[in-house]
Amino acid sequence: MLRPADPSDRLRAIYRIRCDGADGIAARAQAIAVEQSIEMPLAAVDDDRIRREVVGRVEAITPAGAGTFEVVIGLAVETVGGDAGQLLNMLFGNSSLHEDVVLADVEFPAALVREFGGPRHGIAGLRRRSNVSARALTCTALKPQGLPPERLAQLAVRFAQGGIDYIKDDHGLADQDSAPFVVRLAAITGALRSAGCAARYVPSLSGDLDAVRRQLAAAIEAGVDTAMVAPMIMGFANFQRLVREHPGVAFLAHPAMAGAARIAPPLLIGKLFRLIGADAVIFPNHGGRFGYSAETCRVLADAARGEWDTLQPSVPVPAGGMSTTRVREMLDFYGTEVMLLIGGALLEAGERLPAATTAFVAEVANYSG
Amino acid sequence: MLRPADPSDRLRAIYRIRCDGADGIAARAQAIAVEQSIEMPLAAVDDDRIRREVVGRVEAITPAGAGTFEVVIGLAVETVGGDAGQLLNMLFGNSSLHEDVVLADVEFPAALVREFGGPRHGIAGLRRRSNVSARALTCTALKPQGLPPERLAQLAVRFAQGGIDYIKDDHGLADQDSAPFVVRLAAITGALRSAGCAARYVPSLSGDLDAVRRQLAAAIEAGVDTAMVAPMIMGFANFQRLVREHPGVAFLAHPAMAGAARIAPPLLIGKLFRLIGADAVIFPNHGGRFGYSAETCRVLADAARGEWDTLQPSVPVPAGGMSTTRVREMLDFYGTEVMLLIGGALLEAGERLPAATTAFVAEVANYSG
Repeated sequence: MLRPADPSDRLRAIYRIRCDGADGIAARAQAIAVEQSIEMPLAAVDDDRIRREVVGRVEAITPAGAGTFEVVIGLAVETVGGDAGQLLNMLFGNSSLHEDVVLADVEFPAALVREFGGPRHGIAGLRRRSNVSARALTCTALKPQGLPPERLAQLAVRFAQGGIDYIKDDHGLADQDSAPFVVRLAAITGALRSAGCAARYVPSLSGDLDAVRRQLAAAIEAGVDTAMVAPMIMGFANFQRLVREHPGVAFLAHPAMAGAARIAPPLLIGKLFRLIGADAVIFPNHGGRFGYSAETCRVLADAARGEWDTLQPSVPVPAGGMSTTRVREMLDFYGTEVMLLIGGALLEAGERLPAATTAFVAEVANYSG
Repeated sequence: MLRPADPSDRLRAIYRIRCDGADGIAARAQAIAVEQSIEMPLAAVDDDRIRREVVGRVEAITPAGAGTFEVVIGLAVETVGGDAGQLLNMLFGNSSLHEDVVLADVEFPAALVREFGGPRHGIAGLRRRSNVSARALTCTALKPQGLPPERLAQLAVRFAQGGIDYIKDDHGLADQDSAPFVVRLAAITGALRSAGCAARYVPSLSGDLDAVRRQLAAAIEAGVDTAMVAPMIMGFANFQRLVREHPGVAFLAHPAMAGAARIAPPLLIGKLFRLIGADAVIFPNHGGRFGYSAETCRVLADAARGEWDTLQPSVPVPAGGMSTTRVREMLDFYGTEVMLLIGGALLEAGERLPAATTAFVAEVANYSG
């Protein structure tokens, strides 16, 4: 199944383009092939190698209904230079400025897939951390931002005593005065340890690469082995660096700033986040606070954990307004190779939070297809 | 005019929301105020300080025509923690996942504006570098990617001999094998020096923060004092760090991955890029290869260089398929506090590139309102 690496292999980027008539689409496709590669008039390129090997190549144009076309453009691997930020730049940098172009999917040559390397831990690694072999994994979130570290720590212990596997920071928790990263880290990991809880605390890393490294070093020192990042805010290249520097850490990717649709969510969150190393990918489940369709969620989950060359699967983490009443339906939909994340609905239980957490965990544990 | 810093001041984020009826918009606005702050049910927040000071606050809802509403939400400054990445997260992180929400504008408290600090050089600094006092600045781009360093260097010299002020890398030039950054840098700066050219070479920085720092250090060593970045790819926090670490360098911001409209371009490119330190902002001019309207471009340019607390103005750099025939019209439209960027159209001249460049420069120099 694995093809040998061939340097002439191209990335095949698939764009969905709105275009008024079949007449114009060929020119439009060619323009995007140029925009996403040499970005200058083809007529002005006098170098044969560049025309042959570097210029983007329109490989297919297919009507896709409702005045749209699917256009496949072959992009040269050499333009990426092994850098995840540049990968995004070459796939969609300038074309993101066209409101009628969507980056729908990308097929990667095997050599590039292996170079980026994907998740270092994946589903198996996240299962191992929690000593869970078959059932779905569970996750919750510490909120709201503004709480002092000791309150967040109390909350973490209450969740952990309910049997949750992973307790992540809300993505709004950064390095603010109300709960500075290192103080929060110490309070939460200390409290979990004192209470004898096995739950994994997953701190959210933020700031520039140096800040993120300092945070992660402190976290590792405190016994943390799983952390959350927002690749669209941190920058793909910085996330890629972090993954390479910390092979022992599993990363949950948060979709903040991932947009609604200009890069198809299954591609961006399911495929690209996985490619550059996300062990788990959080995304808004259908029927919650966000508008993703069930089909989008299914394709996204498939992209995150489906077979893909040598890459380990990422764990899909459907979230965004979920509750325990939906656990059964979600497991029917996603199967058990999944991490279910319920935050607000557990917090809403107030004094009954431990019981609500226990009920969530039990619902997941008792599920049997 | 400058108000004293008041810690209770909020960022006022202005969203444009599609909503079917006036009935639903109040709940929708409240949901976004919560999503962009505490991200949990308000009823479950038992901390008075958080309800009073941290939760986002709907400040105004105004019908904006065609089933849309403009919603003003006050966000607490403390949630940003001084980090540009977190700023983006708090303004639009999760709401970017709603396809019917646009981040239209943001008003910043003066204290936050000063903390971020804006351009270190701005229009005056870019004029000073080129010894240009009144006319518009000129810029061109080295392309295509795939050319070896010596060819790019020859091209730079030909542009420089035509009298161009700034010669930037194409944003597709990263650290690829065809022209690795340090080899390209040495070839281009060496060739310009040997030819006695005063034009500024503006290399494009790419990769993770470490890579970018190495590139910038090499560039400074080679005499470069102006560099290009793509803040949406590099990550806001990393760009912020770079600006702070290199007060002597002027930065041109490229709009790659800036999207078409989910964050209004005048806000993202004109205001946010400026806030975190872009001395010049490149954007697609109307009537070129991209679909920005003239009005969008005007508002963007105003945001980039208009009066804003203590911030220096950024230079607007309209680009994306411009040509010398449009110089007069562009200067009529933008005035002379601008940098005109023509790349492909000059390259298209082939053998006549020096003459085409001279004509572009002369057209700019001879303009007189």
